[in-house]
Amino acid sequence: MRILISNDDGINSEGLQMLAKTLDELACEVFIVAPDRDQSAASHSLSLHRPLRAEKINSHTYAIDGTPTDCINLAVNGLLKDKKPDLVVSGINMAANLGDDITYSGTVSAAIEATLLKIPSIAVSIDGRLDYKFETAAHYSKILAVYVLEHGLPEDTLLNLNVPNLKLENVKGMKVTKQGKRLYEDPIVEKIDPRGKEYYWIGGNELGFVDIKDSDIMAINDGYVSVTPIKLDLTDHGYLKKLNSDFEGF
Amino acid sequence: MRILISNDDGINSEGLQMLAKTLDELACEVFIVAPDRDQSAASHSLSLHRPLRAEKINSHTYAIDGTPTDCINLAVNGLLKDKKPDLVVSGINMAANLGDDITYSGTVSAAIEATLLKIPSIAVSIDGRLDYKFETAAHYSKILAVYVLEHGLPEDTLLNLNVPNLKLENVKGMKVTKQGKRLYEDPIVEKIDPRGKEYYWIGGNELGFVDIKDSDIMAINDGYVSVTPIKLDLTDHGYLKKLNSDFEGF
Repeated sequence: MRILISNDDGINSEGLQMLAKTLDELACEVFIVAPDRDQSAASHSLSLHRPLRAEKINSHTYAIDGTPTDCINLAVNGLLKDKKPDLVVSGINMAANLGDDITYSGTVSAAIEATLLKIPSIAVSIDGRLDYKFETAAHYSKILAVYVLEHGLPEDTLLNLNVPNLKLENVKGMKVTKQGKRLYEDPIVEKIDPRGKEYYWIGGNELGFVDIKDSDIMAINDGYVSVTPIKLDLTDHGYLKKLNSDFEGF
Repeated sequence: MRILISNDDGINSEGLQMLAKTLDELACEVFIVAPDRDQSAASHSLSLHRPLRAEKINSHTYAIDGTPTDCINLAVNGLLKDKKPDLVVSGINMAANLGDDITYSGTVSAAIEATLLKIPSIAVSIDGRLDYKFETAAHYSKILAVYVLEHGLPEDTLLNLNVPNLKLENVKGMKVTKQGKRLYEDPIVEKIDPRGKEYYWIGGNELGFVDIKDSDIMAINDGYVSVTPIKLDLTDHGYLKKLNSDFEGF
């Protein structure tokens, strides 16, 4: 079995290194193809208008001057094209990817790209800002990796794993969850630069979250690991019916 | 009523200008806040690590040195914060945004950002590569804009409008569709640069599409305008149940 690891924090991230070390314990060939620098909030962007460089760090590790999506695409269709990975794991991201935040996430986008390329995939994030308990997140990543290698995933579905920043013995358990909703407040900071010209900075303070039962955000806040199955079909099938009747005859 | 227009091809794009001109015919205040240059395939990336500049071109038009997502965020929370837009329209993109391609699309991401900010939103794209029939796409954009201003949209749902590159009289009609699936072939081109170093370029030839009934891709291929309702809840609710039973007791 072959596992491909990537992330959006860049190849030197401690989270990625811990993930690789832990998944190395499985009887699998583990490759790392990751951005050469921080690509947080790169979302699912793909570099179409410029070439990409791949720095070979060792026989199983490449650093790419691109986004997480570039890394997965280049790895699967280029660098590792002799054999398709059986699993892609993206992370361990050094911030949670919960609720609507996943649409911005480079970590989740790497998993989306893998899913589009028909490879089962897991995105892993840790809900912390300091003093990261990477071992805990790596432990749960391994559990899910084994599960997915054994059972597969539905086509077009990936797993979004978020782990609280707690020692393993303090985690309350693991919950399968749905995507929640965060609340944000007015996030633009307006300032004047040293030359007197105004500039803007996207800020954003979390106001908390909408109290949705069984959501990813609730699970993490309660001290549980959260596993959310995420699908790539974004069609609003319920609303489609109403629209259909509204637009009949157009 | 206030309409905000953006895109990912940049503020000088003919598609954006035609869209603005057409929506100006409605009794609405129309603002343009768009990237100062091409941001295709920017996906839903948000510039968090650097300031943004807004160049005021006239009282209703700003060019931003950022992504489509930055434009919407900065417009709604900054430049236009005196009054929230009633509708955001993103486009007219000079290539279709169909099937899984929407996850890469800056055009759709601007609409996603608006939806996250609780503003009903429409993404508009034209399925062409040359000799664009912008009038046709603008015509259908206006129809949908009027519909959404009158009826609203479900929270967390946006409309993804794709228009065939045909004269209005040759369009067969409009269909409400679901997200389809394209097929791609091995997309990496590997070459040697003038200094003898290898580089990669993400290419990708379309192989066609999966023959899914009522999909966006089928509608466009058949000469119809396609309207797909897209929702932001990505949870795979069906598979969630199975996962839940598999992970009981964890």
